[in-house]
Amino acid sequence: MIEASVCTIGDEILIGQVVDTNSAHIARALGETGIRVRRMLSIGDQREQIRDSLLNELRMSDVVITTGGLGPTKDDITKAVLAEISGSKTYVENAEQLAIVYRILHGRGLEVLPNNKAQALVPDRCEVIPNPLGTAPVMVFRFTEQEVGHPAALYALPGVPYEAVGILPKVMDDIRTHFELSDIHHRNLMVYGLAESALSELIAPWEDALPKDIHLAYLPNPLTGIRLRLSIYGGRKEEELQRIEEQITRLKAILGNRIYSYQDDSLEETLGRMLKAAGKTLSAAESCTGGEISHLITSVAGSSAYYLGSVTSYAISVKETVLGVPPEIIEQYGVVSSEVAAAMAEGVRRLTGSDYSVATTGLAGPGGDEKNPVGTVWIAVSGPEGTRTVSKCYKNDRKRNIERFAAAALDFLRLYLIETKML
Amino acid sequence: MIEASVCTIGDEILIGQVVDTNSAHIARALGETGIRVRRMLSIGDQREQIRDSLLNELRMSDVVITTGGLGPTKDDITKAVLAEISGSKTYVENAEQLAIVYRILHGRGLEVLPNNKAQALVPDRCEVIPNPLGTAPVMVFRFTEQEVGHPAALYALPGVPYEAVGILPKVMDDIRTHFELSDIHHRNLMVYGLAESALSELIAPWEDALPKDIHLAYLPNPLTGIRLRLSIYGGRKEEELQRIEEQITRLKAILGNRIYSYQDDSLEETLGRMLKAAGKTLSAAESCTGGEISHLITSVAGSSAYYLGSVTSYAISVKETVLGVPPEIIEQYGVVSSEVAAAMAEGVRRLTGSDYSVATTGLAGPGGDEKNPVGTVWIAVSGPEGTRTVSKCYKNDRKRNIERFAAAALDFLRLYLIETKML
Repeated sequence: MIEASVCTIGDEILIGQVVDTNSAHIARALGETGIRVRRMLSIGDQREQIRDSLLNELRMSDVVITTGGLGPTKDDITKAVLAEISGSKTYVENAEQLAIVYRILHGRGLEVLPNNKAQALVPDRCEVIPNPLGTAPVMVFRFTEQEVGHPAALYALPGVPYEAVGILPKVMDDIRTHFELSDIHHRNLMVYGLAESALSELIAPWEDALPKDIHLAYLPNPLTGIRLRLSIYGGRKEEELQRIEEQITRLKAILGNRIYSYQDDSLEETLGRMLKAAGKTLSAAESCTGGEISHLITSVAGSSAYYLGSVTSYAISVKETVLGVPPEIIEQYGVVSSEVAAAMAEGVRRLTGSDYSVATTGLAGPGGDEKNPVGTVWIAVSGPEGTRTVSKCYKNDRKRNIERFAAAALDFLRLYLIETKML
Repeated sequence: MIEASVCTIGDEILIGQVVDTNSAHIARALGETGIRVRRMLSIGDQREQIRDSLLNELRMSDVVITTGGLGPTKDDITKAVLAEISGSKTYVENAEQLAIVYRILHGRGLEVLPNNKAQALVPDRCEVIPNPLGTAPVMVFRFTEQEVGHPAALYALPGVPYEAVGILPKVMDDIRTHFELSDIHHRNLMVYGLAESALSELIAPWEDALPKDIHLAYLPNPLTGIRLRLSIYGGRKEEELQRIEEQITRLKAILGNRIYSYQDDSLEETLGRMLKAAGKTLSAAESCTGGEISHLITSVAGSSAYYLGSVTSYAISVKETVLGVPPEIIEQYGVVSSEVAAAMAEGVRRLTGSDYSVATTGLAGPGGDEKNPVGTVWIAVSGPEGTRTVSKCYKNDRKRNIERFAAAALDFLRLYLIETKML
């Protein structure tokens, strides 16, 4: 199997100023291309360290992907080191990248200075993958068996995360062209509402019967649930995808509505698609989630087509006067109760005139008591088919509890929409 | 200077399933302890790779910190490898950690099984720093010059981020005890509302006059602004802190209210402190920020003492009916306008009865036109001293624009509170 090293370059990583997210993105892209990541390395902007580390990785791995160190300032020396280790004699101007540099700077109303132009200069022994999102192109250096003990390629990507992630598909295309990889055929599905161990137990009979060449991977995430990935290496695309599809049909029979997406959608994107398709509107009333549900919903571009708005009723007075929750209900059942969650959901639906609404009331922490320990939440959903409530309890810190409450509320709303046959 | 390597262990990192945040936390703690991070490495759960990599790092660095690979399952083999390279002969039970294992599992209502108990078993050649947040303790292995070429120490931390971060202060204490480090005296201050380049220009005369032994570091973050760190290596604590204090006084004269905290507070924590101290209340009305401001405010524990709630008025109808924004103002000035922002702020203040309020209306993207390009936001703050508005424009993607809008709104509110002498 082809192996890769991922190397991020920059003092800002070593002093902990930034969290390296590029490596995880690159690792995922490599994995989906059928390449194993051997290891990841982060090093500083020092000439010897960059040279020695990159040569060492090239000797061990078939593919080395670097990010960073390509900026126009003096401390960015990766390009010079790459010129050296590739035996380049001079720098040449890449016309395509130069045009991008002009376009980007003129677009910002800036003059193109000599050090901007220099971004399009690359060592003569490299090939260029133009980077439309930034001024530094991707440089591809190919090494022979004589140089590093086996044929290898080094891809130097810019360090800015959105540029690095944006150019990854082209880098993977280049790898596919130059290395012999089996094709990978795969499908993902997203599951919410089951712990990894519970899911694994539930689908064990199905998993045991899975043909040997169909690989299953669990990628759990406490907020979006578990991504299940089914993949086959090699074979004909249509036939193999058909075989994966058959397995998904069986899995559907077991998991039903627990599967919320067959793409990499989030819960809020899935909900958005459902509401948009049905031409229905939504509102929210939040207490313990404090705005997080509304934030998630509106993080989806185009959410104004179905989302009317929300009330965060942190104070009891706002629950009563804005949402119209009857004071006697609060007194009788307490703020953290099924009854108050229901009244909040009904109140915001009445207030905004939305078709559906979702509400939360709970304790994210600190604090709590025996009746309502920290991590308790009541969720309500209201719509034309009535109001439903559910209670959950998580055992995390305040920040994480808020995120979990919000995700659980979105999922409860999703199930309501399905079960009441909105679609 | 003492040098360190940081090594995260686990297949989940190499396949890109999780983003490694431990390394950045550890690097920051090391930097603040006066230790330079030489490099960072992420490797998989393979015996040879762990052994070879750790021995290699021990030969290069004085301190090696690892995280991960200490769980109770079969694929976690770090402990066995550490036993091997340290020349341990057997495993011994650590009574203090065993008590923690019992406390944690009983607290969750679970039985203590043999593989849980095994978490408190450690190689006989290690010292233990008990981990009160999880079942795996920190293991400290000390190596001699004969073994790795120079005296070195390896700290094996658990991989769960909140456990690793939680135990870091104790790990740093141990390093301080066993290595000769200069004391570091330092103070941080948080600055909002200036780009790094603008800040650097503004304080250049002050920076040029800074005594040579006082180090200045910029740690920019697009959401919380820039953290300035002033530090002195060595010397007597009281005297040196006094010298730093004098420099901060000079800096204050230049930056004034741009400095929002002398701790590592966020804007929302700073605001919370101000409002709590003044006994005043706050509410919010959000359009383009969609709930993010409310989410940030309520992410602070104890925010219910001053925060009443918010209205997310995503639809125009909600702006009009819930917040009472006059339709003719929307028609005359457009939704993204100073006038609508002001009417929203005044509306939510009236609705909730809060002392102060903050409101946003803008375009996070995609879309936009010539009058209001994507990234435009109007922010309003309303209080007993009247209503003020300001407009900002950012050039990011939707997600990032929303975050920037929210931070700018919190800062505008902070400045209003200071300038109207609420405190």
